[in-house]
Parts: sequence; C-alpha cells; structure tokens
Amino acid sequence: MEARIPKRTLVEGLSILERIIPSRSSNPILTYLPIELTPQSLVLRGTNGEVDIEVKLPAETQGLGQVLIPAHTFVQIVRSVPGEMVELLSGGGERLELRSGTFNTQLATTSPDGYPALDFTVPRAERISAAKLAQAITRVRYAASNEEYRAIFRGVQLEMSPAGLRAVASDGFRLARYDLPMQLQARKLVIPARSADEIVRVFKDAPGEVALAVGEGTLTLAGEAVRMSVKLMEGEFPDYTRVIPQSFVLEATLPAEALRESLKRVAVLSDRNNHRVNLLFSDGRLDIDAEGDYGRGREELRVDSSGGPQLMVAYNARYLIDALAPIEGAVRIKLSGPTSPSLVQAVEDEGYLAVVVPLRV
Amino acid sequence: MEARIPKRTLVEGLSILERIIPSRSSNPILTYLPIELTPQSLVLRGTNGEVDIEVKLPAETQGLGQVLIPAHTFVQIVRSVPGEMVELLSGGGERLELRSGTFNTQLATTSPDGYPALDFTVPRAERISAAKLAQAITRVRYAASNEEYRAIFRGVQLEMSPAGLRAVASDGFRLARYDLPMQLQARKLVIPARSADEIVRVFKDAPGEVALAVGEGTLTLAGEAVRMSVKLMEGEFPDYTRVIPQSFVLEATLPAEALRESLKRVAVLSDRNNHRVNLLFSDGRLDIDAEGDYGRGREELRVDSSGGPQLMVAYNARYLIDALAPIEGAVRIKLSGPTSPSLVQAVEDEGYLAVVVPLRV
Repeated sequence: MEARIPKRTLVEGLSILERIIPSRSSNPILTYLPIELTPQSLVLRGTNGEVDIEVKLPAETQGLGQVLIPAHTFVQIVRSVPGEMVELLSGGGERLELRSGTFNTQLATTSPDGYPALDFTVPRAERISAAKLAQAITRVRYAASNEEYRAIFRGVQLEMSPAGLRAVASDGFRLARYDLPMQLQARKLVIPARSADEIVRVFKDAPGEVALAVGEGTLTLAGEAVRMSVKLMEGEFPDYTRVIPQSFVLEATLPAEALRESLKRVAVLSDRNNHRVNLLFSDGRLDIDAEGDYGRGREELRVDSSGGPQLMVAYNARYLIDALAPIEGAVRIKLSGPTSPSLVQAVEDEGYLAVVVPLRV
Repeated sequence: MEARIPKRTLVEGLSILERIIPSRSSNPILTYLPIELTPQSLVLRGTNGEVDIEVKLPAETQGLGQVLIPAHTFVQIVRSVPGEMVELLSGGGERLELRSGTFNTQLATTSPDGYPALDFTVPRAERISAAKLAQAITRVRYAASNEEYRAIFRGVQLEMSPAGLRAVASDGFRLARYDLPMQLQARKLVIPARSADEIVRVFKDAPGEVALAVGEGTLTLAGEAVRMSVKLMEGEFPDYTRVIPQSFVLEATLPAEALRESLKRVAVLSDRNNHRVNLLFSDGRLDIDAEGDYGRGREELRVDSSGGPQLMVAYNARYLIDALAPIEGAVRIKLSGPTSPSLVQAVEDEGYLAVVVPLRV
C-alpha cells in the first residue's frame, strides 16, 4: 500500500492526536499510532483510555490496509522532513518506508493485534455547533474541582433539554453556569474536566457542527474530519440551584477587565493563604484593598450601583478573578449580603452566570 | 525621599535583576531589593552570592537615601501598575509608598543592616565591546560540562593576551574555542558557566563598551547603566591544545544549516543512548544514516570535498549539532581519521573552532 499526503495536512492531523497518545504506557501498544489507508484518505487513531480520537485526512492512496508505528517518533520525523509532500510505502513487511525530499526512513511497525477497538458510531445523534459547544464548556471549566473530595465536582455537567444546552461546573465554593438556547432531548451527563479540555482543544476552531450521541457510559462527538469518544463519570451533581441567590441588597455594574486588572494588582499584597481582598461598594464607587506580610494595596474604581448605601464584602481574589475571566465588556455583580453568595453576570452575554461565596469577615 | 520614574524604565531595570535575586534564601535579606536614591537616578542592586548586579536608572529624585523592599513582590506590582509613571515616597518610616494612576500601595521595608556590601569598582580596567564579549562567550558556552567530574570544565575560560581575547569551553569529549583579535594584558580566568550565562543575558544587547577588571577571585564588568561582578573559579584548564588535530586526511565544506537540519531528522531514529549517526564522506557527497529500535533514517547531501576517496565517521549527533549551532553560512569539517578528533570551522568566521571526538566504530 502507498499514500501521498502534504506534510502540512499530516502535521495538523498528528497535532490533534499527539497529546492523548501516551509516550509510555503499561500497555505499550497504546504508544503506537494506527494508520489506516482507505480510498482517498488516511485515518489516524489514538486513545489514552479516557478519550479516543479519530482523524480522517484527505490523501492519495493506493491499496488498503493498516499499519501500527511508534507514534511520537513518527510525529517528530514528520515535523522535520524537508519536503512539502510525504510518501508512505508498505510492502506488507515489518517496515513502513517514509520518503520526503532527500530524506528517507524505514520505520519499524508492530502487529495491530491487541490494539483496542475504538467505536465512534453515532446512532440517533443530535447536532450542535462545534465552536459553541467548546465555548460553553470553556466558560465554566475553571470552576471544576481539583480535589479528590466529592469526585463528581471534578467533572463538567452538561444538561440537555428542550430549552437548550447547559454547562455547569462547581467545586462547592463557587459555581459557573452557561446556557446555550436550542432544542435537545432531555438528559444529563458529567464529563471528566480533563476530557472536557480535550473536547475544547479539538473542536474550538472546528467548522460546522458535531453530532452528539450518548452511549453506555460514553459520549461520542463526530465532527467533519475528527471523531471523538469520551468516558463519562457516573452520577450527577447534587442540586446546586439552591446556592444561586434570588434576592439582592445591592447591584453594581462596571467594566470586567478594569475590575480584573485592579484585583490582580491589589491581590499581590494579599495574604498568601486566603488571597483575601476587601471590596467596599458605595454610591458610584468601589474601593478594593488587601493587606498581607509585605504591605497594603489599594485602588478605587467607578461603578454604576443601585441598592443599599454601602456594603463591604471580602473574597478570595483568585475566585473572583476566575469568575470574571469569561466576561467581555461589562460585569454586573449582585450582592445578597456580606456573607451570602454573590452573583457575577455578563451584561452582554445572558448565558453566563457565576456564583462566588464571600470569605467570612 | 521621593522618586518619579517611567514604569517602562523601572520594569526594564528590574528585569535585569529579578533572575539573580533569590525568591527564597537561607539569608532572607538577599530576597530584598535595595533601592538607593541618588541625584537624578535610582540605583537598584541584587546578588545571588555568585553574581552581583547594579543597575542605575534615570529618575526625578528628591532627597537621598536607601530602602530595602521585598524584591519579587515589588517586581510583580510594578509590572501591573495602571499608570505610565511610578512614584515612590518614603518618610523614613517602615513603609514605602508606591503610587501609579488610581493604584496605591504601602510596602513593608526592612533595615539595610546585614545586606552585603557589593563592590563594583574597576581600577585599571581594560575596555571591550559589550556585545562582542557576550558573543564570544555564547559561541563556546554549549561545550562546557554539566558533570561534577573535573569541576573546572563547568566553567568558560577567558584567555586575554596581546593577541586578543580567547573564550574556551570543553567537557573532555568536545571543545569550542572563539578568538576575538584585540590587545589585552595577558591573564587567564575561568567563569562558572551559569555566571557566564548571566553575563551574556545582561550584556548581549548592551550598547558601547564594558570595562573589565580582575580583582581577588572576581571579575567586574562595568557597562554604561549596569555593573556586574562575578566570582571566578579557582585553577585553569589543563592543556587542551594537544587535542586540536593539526593534519587531516579529508576536508568537506557544505551549508551548516542544511547539515544541522539533516542531522536532526536522521537522529530521530538513532540509538537513544549514544545518539549515533554515521557520516560517509565520498567525492562530492555526504550520506548520513542512523538506526535504532524504531527503524532507520537516511539522507544524502552534496558537499565540496578534497582528500581521500571516502571515509566513514560516526558521531554523537547532539555533539555535532551543538558544534554547528554557532555557525552561519558554510561549515568546513576537517577529518583526521575515523577515530581521531574532527575539526569543525565556520568558513565565514575565522574566530570559531570546535573539536568533536568521533564515536568508536
């Protein structure tokens, strides 16, 4: 069998796979890359046990078949070849020949026996914009937990319903939620946060739609050139809606970026353990200050505010900075009191909502 | 005392110092930054015990004096301040006030007692272009040893003489030498490789000349805005001139970059322990190949050659790639035999010379 493919196309395809293919594994065959020749395309696959990916690349091919070659060695070679085209030739023996320009290599292959069967079929799929799905996950991902405690919070929950797609993440101290209006069949699933990162990486710049299908403990996403299957977590989030405050004593609106930058500066001086910053909201004005071993930082910002005369609330600066990160333009902060949860909303994007719990005074 | 300085000037000055000021130290005062106000300048200093640096920055000042503030906190704050100017104010108390735009901070200071006296005086100095000195060190630095064994090889030797400045580095398996013609007083000194890196970092883009002065176990380098003092190593290199071959059986000339890129590609397949690549020189042609667990790589290049009909030499690919790195344009490789040292020279820069010992066949 023979294939001819532009170096650039092959490098792009490999860059989607190389992050998930392990360079060492207790099951060494997973460090190999299966290359399958089909009429007019090369199909590359890889898995890390949690996430499976398949990439289909247009190529000139002669003959059909599959070879397994050492994945990371192949990636290194393809990136460095001198020619614009890469030719792959296999006579069915134990070597795959790669030619490009003046360079020529014979790569050791291994038997495909023992490589896991990867399934990317999507029966009864629902379709959704690839970029929007990636965006919804990205907006909430930061709030997922890194702790072993309450393992379910180490995932991102996707809630599909006739009202739309909702992505939620929380670590018990904060919560982020993103709504994308559309019509979907009702179901809930939780994706491990690291696998959610892979979905974002693969689909954030992908054109068109992906087909979504939920199988037994897996979610399969099929895009135009890339198909992906991720293992789901068992269970679902405990009821988080009760931590979202409903009544407020003060609301303030200001540019999110100005607040974020100011918090970063002031937080340099904050206590290194709790990153505490104090926010004093008063009529048309927000004073931010922090104090730690190395001194004190202070800054004032103008805000549009309504509600009570003034209110002091303390936050972990990192949590508030994280909650502001997905917001472009203005942020609206709604306070329900100095010790009860605050709401952070994007004025120009109604889909985004975050909850941050203040530090105790 | 009071000072006013553009944020940009202060950030540039701090970026020269921040790499050497430790963020933790068994002597905590070294984590502080001494700021001295002199008429029309701020003088900043720092030391890691091996390298001392002083930076003089133009500023509007009122009053004289010195304060010590936590260095890395200060750097973080100055980088993030919102204004174009930074104002520093000290009433002699325990706080230094920093103002910039709407931001305001009170930084804790500490007593300058116990901060080491740093000496940058340069009596009877010799002058040399800052950029050229940095260049000479850069060209040879790669060949210095990382091993504990034969500690002197962990330094870069500078040999000054009426013929010029010579920089030399070696790890016993390879050697790099760079000559800069100029007239200097005869002396030899060895700079620890890491301190040599700091000299390069600080002076490679510096305008004008530096004054060099050798004191008791130290080399002081005084540039226009930056002065630096580095501890020297004791002793000098064993006689290395005897490993530089004098007679040759074959010479080949080719573009250094093409050879470098080709070696990188072929070496991907080489044995992971010795990175062995075989070079077969024949009339007008060089064949490079390597073989390891994952297969075999091969490439041919055209060369201008003279000497014996053909010769096979094996190298550690990394050593040869390193030796080629400083060369722009063409490289001339002079072989003294399949197992005796090879010479690598830059055709367009007579100052550079490297010796690489072949691997045993």
